[in-house]
Amino acid sequence: MSLLVTGSIGIDTVTTPYGVSENCLGGSSVYFSMAASFFGPVRLIGVIGADCPFDLAEVFAGRDVDLAGLEVRQKSKTFRWEGTYKEDMDERVTDLLELNVLAEAAPAVPDAYKDSKFVFLANTSPALQLELLEQIQGPVFVAADTMDCWIEREPDDLKLLLKKIDCLVINDEEARLLAAESSLIKAAKKVLKMGPHVVVIKKGESGSITRDANGEIFILPAYPARQVKDPTGAGDSFAGAFMGHLASGGVAGKPGFEPLKTAIAYGTVVASFTVEDFSLAGLTSITRDDIDDRIQDLRKLTQF
Amino acid sequence: MSLLVTGSIGIDTVTTPYGVSENCLGGSSVYFSMAASFFGPVRLIGVIGADCPFDLAEVFAGRDVDLAGLEVRQKSKTFRWEGTYKEDMDERVTDLLELNVLAEAAPAVPDAYKDSKFVFLANTSPALQLELLEQIQGPVFVAADTMDCWIEREPDDLKLLLKKIDCLVINDEEARLLAAESSLIKAAKKVLKMGPHVVVIKKGESGSITRDANGEIFILPAYPARQVKDPTGAGDSFAGAFMGHLASGGVAGKPGFEPLKTAIAYGTVVASFTVEDFSLAGLTSITRDDIDDRIQDLRKLTQF
Repeated sequence: MSLLVTGSIGIDTVTTPYGVSENCLGGSSVYFSMAASFFGPVRLIGVIGADCPFDLAEVFAGRDVDLAGLEVRQKSKTFRWEGTYKEDMDERVTDLLELNVLAEAAPAVPDAYKDSKFVFLANTSPALQLELLEQIQGPVFVAADTMDCWIEREPDDLKLLLKKIDCLVINDEEARLLAAESSLIKAAKKVLKMGPHVVVIKKGESGSITRDANGEIFILPAYPARQVKDPTGAGDSFAGAFMGHLASGGVAGKPGFEPLKTAIAYGTVVASFTVEDFSLAGLTSITRDDIDDRIQDLRKLTQF
Repeated sequence: MSLLVTGSIGIDTVTTPYGVSENCLGGSSVYFSMAASFFGPVRLIGVIGADCPFDLAEVFAGRDVDLAGLEVRQKSKTFRWEGTYKEDMDERVTDLLELNVLAEAAPAVPDAYKDSKFVFLANTSPALQLELLEQIQGPVFVAADTMDCWIEREPDDLKLLLKKIDCLVINDEEARLLAAESSLIKAAKKVLKMGPHVVVIKKGESGSITRDANGEIFILPAYPARQVKDPTGAGDSFAGAFMGHLASGGVAGKPGFEPLKTAIAYGTVVASFTVEDFSLAGLTSITRDDIDDRIQDLRKLTQF
């Protein structure tokens, strides 16, 4: 089934206790697409400036990532982010944030993308997410990410968005903030009442909690990565593998809880590869077999 | 198989956002024994002063808890602890700590207990844990708990202890401190090199990681408690159910990794009942069937 992602493409400089990765390729739609491409075709929507030093066609060479939705604006500058992770990788400090082209008008959705059945709206303003979503005709399963600044500054738009999506994928602090509830299980229930049928709460190295409107719950630990060199993109890779696996299932209707659980496991495993190296290196160095091996391993690690 | 626990018996005053529980029964050996008694007989070693308002025979009435190892010292005062849990229950502040009788000589091990096959040495000074352990003849499986102050102040005694036990049960911060390693998976490996064959690292509401010297790993989320009213005793109940289930298996030799995993699941579930009410109320109000129901539920919540 056709899978569409809208999100950022950026130039990142990341510092972790393992070193510095300067001016490397980043952005939510890039991590998402790379992760999703292990499962099937991906349609990417994103915008960059003329200064972008990366040839995305080359980056995604050999992968089924459609770049018809990539827009290059000659007079604009690409989104830039610089961040530093501290000792235990739990805490991240943003050293520089230049929205640049992301502060301009949204990229257009190509006509050929408008029949997309699976849609992921990566983190951006909910008004923009709504605008993009409205251009898709009859999607089957729509998931979105959001973050603290939109929860705090644009709650009305966010509420509208939540009524139009099937699944919200957020982290633990965002869930607590959105639901005004410290227990994640209860926060998930409150978020479901805001609209989505499923909520996935990511807890970093503590894994994830997924809950649906029928009361089904799935709790999965993170896969123990060999080392955590750079957590950047872990959440977007998680979402990419999650949506990629769902879309590959060829589901006619909305996926039930069992396929959702399997998709969460794939998200977990692919994110574990992402964090093991800087930028996209953790993803570009593996094969689908490596992913499936870790799925088997994750089953063994968690079953009793 | 015979199961012995040595640990504290205390008078606790606990404040949480749900209320205050004043002068209630607490202590590691009490929580441990209550939890273990769902699985089979328990032998308790502990010491109290004449001021102790609780009749332990009554507290454990109807449960197979042997109190031959309970010593009442007429001229001493019972251990007292007062603590406050903040909003998210993650942080605990000790408001008062009176060791009292715990600062005196250790209680004697009754002759009838000396053939105990499963032994749990709850948290106390490693010198004292060693002294108690030396009185047991040919135990099959010995587990111990410890805490930051012993890791920092009595590292030599602790190293001796670690060489004589099969399993160390500690929390995440203690593991990181003991191993001088922030990754818990790596910390577990380092702890195993210090002596024990198995290490169980408890991560509170994020569950636990268990690793053995053969490289086997088991990662289990916490069971989502309906509410967390009072986390006191969660770790000791976890240990009690873990050891109780292992001892009930009637294993001739040391338990393999599969029975350890099941025992961890029982520890997880029993701890979830403990935190749902103040003091021992979460444990005294349930049956073995309630525990088994949650085991089935935990399987469903975590399997994919």
